[in-house]
Amino acid sequence: MSETDELLTLYWKDGCLYILDQRLLPHRVEYMACTACSEVVEAISEMAVRGAPAIGITAAFGMALAAREALGKNNDQGQMHSYLARASKQLFQSRPTAVNLSWALERIDKWLSENEGLTAQETAEGLLVEAEKIFSEDLENNRLIGVNGAALIPDKAAVLTHCNAGALATGGYGTALGVVRAAIGEGKEVHVFIDETRPLLQGSRLTAFEMLHENIPATLITDNCAGYLIKQGKIDLIIVGADRIAGNGDTANKIGTYPLAVMAAYHHIPFYVAAPLSTIDLSLPSGDEIVIEERKPEEVTRFGNQDVAPEDINVYNPAFDVTPAGLINAIITEKGVVYSPDQEKLYKLFAKV
Amino acid sequence: MSETDELLTLYWKDGCLYILDQRLLPHRVEYMACTACSEVVEAISEMAVRGAPAIGITAAFGMALAAREALGKNNDQGQMHSYLARASKQLFQSRPTAVNLSWALERIDKWLSENEGLTAQETAEGLLVEAEKIFSEDLENNRLIGVNGAALIPDKAAVLTHCNAGALATGGYGTALGVVRAAIGEGKEVHVFIDETRPLLQGSRLTAFEMLHENIPATLITDNCAGYLIKQGKIDLIIVGADRIAGNGDTANKIGTYPLAVMAAYHHIPFYVAAPLSTIDLSLPSGDEIVIEERKPEEVTRFGNQDVAPEDINVYNPAFDVTPAGLINAIITEKGVVYSPDQEKLYKLFAKV
Repeated sequence: MSETDELLTLYWKDGCLYILDQRLLPHRVEYMACTACSEVVEAISEMAVRGAPAIGITAAFGMALAAREALGKNNDQGQMHSYLARASKQLFQSRPTAVNLSWALERIDKWLSENEGLTAQETAEGLLVEAEKIFSEDLENNRLIGVNGAALIPDKAAVLTHCNAGALATGGYGTALGVVRAAIGEGKEVHVFIDETRPLLQGSRLTAFEMLHENIPATLITDNCAGYLIKQGKIDLIIVGADRIAGNGDTANKIGTYPLAVMAAYHHIPFYVAAPLSTIDLSLPSGDEIVIEERKPEEVTRFGNQDVAPEDINVYNPAFDVTPAGLINAIITEKGVVYSPDQEKLYKLFAKV
Repeated sequence: MSETDELLTLYWKDGCLYILDQRLLPHRVEYMACTACSEVVEAISEMAVRGAPAIGITAAFGMALAAREALGKNNDQGQMHSYLARASKQLFQSRPTAVNLSWALERIDKWLSENEGLTAQETAEGLLVEAEKIFSEDLENNRLIGVNGAALIPDKAAVLTHCNAGALATGGYGTALGVVRAAIGEGKEVHVFIDETRPLLQGSRLTAFEMLHENIPATLITDNCAGYLIKQGKIDLIIVGADRIAGNGDTANKIGTYPLAVMAAYHHIPFYVAAPLSTIDLSLPSGDEIVIEERKPEEVTRFGNQDVAPEDINVYNPAFDVTPAGLINAIITEKGVVYSPDQEKLYKLFAKV
């Protein structure tokens, strides 16, 4: 989670991408050793790795693996490029909502078109370096998000968060939880209330794990309990991550985020989104254009190996919802805090050096 | 669920109270055979039986069992009364929030004080008759709630419900789901969206089971998904049951109800509560005085037999929240529909013949 304890979301070693299998947390710490791009595609689609920034980084390493596969087949530079184009398409299709995935793949594509003159061997080496840059830049961006956001967290704050926007969702440190870490680093007392986040329980499995790991005071609740806490005045602010932010600030995040934003507005507490610029998709004018992934019914009707509902029941299981910009008090990025986000402010942010 | 298929929440036969063990649903239909009041206390506190009206009925039969125990010990009438007083206290303490429990026990107490001249044998027989009356009156009241509420359900309505306020929560037919049944009985098309209702999943285990059982079109969702559906305009109204309604109309119901009421107000769709008068507690001026039960952390940290969170994490697990009367469009009772409920209207309801 932090550099000291070496529990990394993913790492590269000797031609192999090791992905922490987050489906097994908090019970087992196991890494999947991926040597083929197809394994990376599966790790993303099956959510062994999740969290928009982490998915982007993983996809970049997936491309580095694809380049090595192409090398192993003695492909020349031209063949390698078409091999990589296929790999990029497969990675792109692994999950639809998080824009960091396409952002990372576009960055790799750009690197490829800027480096067409390299040999296949040089291309493979260069892609790995680019993936590692994406990884380290994400970690650095999260630290900047933390610095920028910490001022929004009062001392002795009770902070509600949803899903996991922590170290495990990113290259490290986290976005929403990075802000909490930075506030604590400044000497503030913070208590984190953790929505368990059905159906996949990223709150109870991952955020609770991160908080315990670093001795950050925290309380786990069901998603149903958040409203009652807010009503009682026990929550000072809500902070979440994002999977895709449209050009006007509308934000797709884990299902259940939107009602929290409504509750925050109703009770006059601030609702913040913490995310790097790589999560902002200026190509979309509003959240209406964000594709919302629907996942399989078994995430709702089963739990591990247990059925929890009658098997014939219809299920609707969207993985995300969209919170309109008007309900977001600020978006916290590595380039600064955007209060009352709108299209003009987000465009300006990208223009900022 | 209905009389035809004989799946009853509870029934009395040959000196034994059979309680459907709802913890095993939807997988197994098993009845607990209770011959002692202490078994009934445990069935209530451990939620083998749940739902405010069902708890009240169960407690009344618990008193009938206690009377038979006292008879078996050759107690005279005086000894029986003190035995019954202890039993009543234990039943009263089995769960704190649902007022139907104390309502039923007070009704039994009243019957006892009105029938002090009876022999111990006659008392035991009379209590059983009184419990059976409470049972059959609840079923009748639910049918009247259905008749009164059906007019509020438009044809082709998409109805969201939370927890289980169905046949399994009552003496039969149900309160919130009774209204749905009545609307369907009138020939309307209704689609029920079912909140799974963490932590104990009464939605996925019980409401889904009831809906499938009667071929009522239904879709199961996580609690997190309700807001997104409402935002998309896919829900026409919300209807829930109640565990205790204060004199001013503030309503305690399963945790997660309050945020639904806020969402309904925010999106201008009606939010209805369906409950018998036995759930209305005129002794409390407002919802602030309703005692909210906190249950054990394991309901949140475990899922069936599986741990889902790190074992050292703090948990807050209130079983109910309180929805202010101002967010409730109407309370549907057996004596009629109370629009924009307040103290004056609820008092008038009780005065009604």
